[in-house]
Amino acid sequence: MPYKHIAGGVTAPKGFKAAGVAAGIKDPSRKELALIYSVVPACAAGLFTANRVKAAPLYVTKEHLRDGRAQAVVINSGNANACNGSQGLEDAKAMAREAARLLRLLPEDVLVASTGVIGQPLPLAKIIKSLGQAVVALSEQGGGAAAEAIMTTDTRPKEAALQFELAGKVITVGGMAKGAGMIHPQLATMLCFLTTDVAISVPCLQEVIRMAAASSFNLLTVDRDTSTNDMLVILANGRAENPAINKRNAAYNMFQEAVLKVCTELTIAIARDGEGATKLLEVRVINAASREDACLAARAVAASNLVKTAIFGQDANWGRIICAVGYSGAKFDPYRINIFLGNEQVAQNGSMLPFSEAAAVQALAGSKVSILIDFNEGTYEAMAWGCDLTYDYIRINASYRT
Amino acid sequence: MPYKHIAGGVTAPKGFKAAGVAAGIKDPSRKELALIYSVVPACAAGLFTANRVKAAPLYVTKEHLRDGRAQAVVINSGNANACNGSQGLEDAKAMAREAARLLRLLPEDVLVASTGVIGQPLPLAKIIKSLGQAVVALSEQGGGAAAEAIMTTDTRPKEAALQFELAGKVITVGGMAKGAGMIHPQLATMLCFLTTDVAISVPCLQEVIRMAAASSFNLLTVDRDTSTNDMLVILANGRAENPAINKRNAAYNMFQEAVLKVCTELTIAIARDGEGATKLLEVRVINAASREDACLAARAVAASNLVKTAIFGQDANWGRIICAVGYSGAKFDPYRINIFLGNEQVAQNGSMLPFSEAAAVQALAGSKVSILIDFNEGTYEAMAWGCDLTYDYIRINASYRT
Repeated sequence: MPYKHIAGGVTAPKGFKAAGVAAGIKDPSRKELALIYSVVPACAAGLFTANRVKAAPLYVTKEHLRDGRAQAVVINSGNANACNGSQGLEDAKAMAREAARLLRLLPEDVLVASTGVIGQPLPLAKIIKSLGQAVVALSEQGGGAAAEAIMTTDTRPKEAALQFELAGKVITVGGMAKGAGMIHPQLATMLCFLTTDVAISVPCLQEVIRMAAASSFNLLTVDRDTSTNDMLVILANGRAENPAINKRNAAYNMFQEAVLKVCTELTIAIARDGEGATKLLEVRVINAASREDACLAARAVAASNLVKTAIFGQDANWGRIICAVGYSGAKFDPYRINIFLGNEQVAQNGSMLPFSEAAAVQALAGSKVSILIDFNEGTYEAMAWGCDLTYDYIRINASYRT
Repeated sequence: MPYKHIAGGVTAPKGFKAAGVAAGIKDPSRKELALIYSVVPACAAGLFTANRVKAAPLYVTKEHLRDGRAQAVVINSGNANACNGSQGLEDAKAMAREAARLLRLLPEDVLVASTGVIGQPLPLAKIIKSLGQAVVALSEQGGGAAAEAIMTTDTRPKEAALQFELAGKVITVGGMAKGAGMIHPQLATMLCFLTTDVAISVPCLQEVIRMAAASSFNLLTVDRDTSTNDMLVILANGRAENPAINKRNAAYNMFQEAVLKVCTELTIAIARDGEGATKLLEVRVINAASREDACLAARAVAASNLVKTAIFGQDANWGRIICAVGYSGAKFDPYRINIFLGNEQVAQNGSMLPFSEAAAVQALAGSKVSILIDFNEGTYEAMAWGCDLTYDYIRINASYRT
């Protein structure tokens, strides 16, 4: 096992500090402003939502990433700074400018992100004021506070970190994410911030996160609502002092795998903490004719309201699973598909297999439910993650704004 | 106003009888078998689900429609006869064969449909037995009983009928539909049966229902789950004795409009009776660059879990509306879009317009909620229908099968 999971998140790699402080944006009793800081300039790359409506900080961060370099990230929760017109852009730029001034950086080296209610003016003055406190609070133990400060309807912070060795040097990858509702990422994810001390070129870094997101966050769904604020950002500051990675070789692959592992861990943490969720749902499609077919089917099943309510009710209603596969757009033969709930096979060749109701209910009873779908067609597979749909999802979302 | 709404459903046109009887399929206390019968052979056409997994009766009905002629339709609720392998096909054929025997028709002139739980063997013997009672019960007043017999989680039957004059002859179009969950039709709809006494060619009839479904059922959504059993069938028996319609002319257009009106009425009835729904949701997109863009956006908003829960909670959270438009795939300019809840404008040029919270809540308070989205781009528009997402949707679907 060349990878070692360790405690911590964005401050686990060498040379990173972070902080999370209250800011009075929506709830004065909670931390709502996070700051990540690298002690030296870092290579940086990002992915952004495919939603045509993009929040203001995404435009600013994209612009600031153009030179592939960044040294700090400022994130507020409690307000999405989306659909705020030109004022939104000004406010996002002002967040970066003030953080740069306090940290003695160029504004272009500060990335910004927001999450919360869409379409309400950002309380910039409060953020500016709290930024000073965040800078003072920066520490190498601050990752946890930062992970707390980016939460909205999340019930717990989401962090992950792991280490591996490269040419005799220890490399650490850390990350934090938030997300519980409006989760159906397309080409990016709800907010995710990754840090690493690896030395790597910007093009390699960009490709690594693109591949990692494709197999983690992009196969995650809570409610099929792709957010306006999805963003994944990574900073790599080179403090591990490995020979810099600048092409696809063994070291690249090892780092790629590490990033994917951290992203997958955060993906699962988001699914498990989906709004109102009581169960994590893992849908695996195997023996598909293509990776695309496997992804389409896995995600459609994980996203189906009817599958999700049946899981909540521990009802072994496999007809809803095959129905979702059927409308997913995936190519498959309805007369060759096998379906398993946990270890219990419930359908064979597209028809019911007499199964043990007790064993099926058992497979649905735990806090993690696994659905396996075998296409019997080819050699490709995919895994998608989701959660059940419960009364609490309704309660949370019937009055989120007010 | 050349169209007159009248009472009744499938037995409103001349020469149609229907019945609905108990059959002991899932709930012995309810009618679960419907029969529609035309006293003379009728022209017939149908539309079927785009789901790759299709229930057995769809294959049989498609086959029986190949000659464009039919005289009866048998429909059971309580069991979908989907994912039952070759036995399912045999059972669907046997339903048609037995009805044909009792009615002295060719089996090819009988169409079949099923709705209910997926993946459980059809209790054919019970259906065969009840078919005899249904034939005895056939009457010109039987439309209401038939509409009752096709209900599953529907809380009320759905019928519509209207009349208009053509060349001095009164033409009647009637219909019934069912559907409350697993509603997100693609190219067809949850079960809908239309009858008419118009004289019309089969190609014209097929085109008329295709156009009508595109502007009604295909813009309806309850839970984004496209069913395996969706089917729309129309019988036209010519008993109105009008000069037969066989090309696109004024008479064709008049009939087309009548069918669209009946389909729209049934579409709205399904949306209003969506599983657990307390409110009908109408989403209208205007001034789009194309009809396709308007449809994509309207349907995405009507389908969004987050919009639907906000409507339930009477929360004027317009950010979720623009978010859904953003990921819908529709082309539009996020800085030109205006949004109205009822008559209250809440967003202008993609940003919040200071609005009256009281007026917005008022717009969300009734049993029908209207959302208007103005793209300010072109001249096309579309309307989509849905409902709110409530605690009762969860309750109904957490234990539907058991």
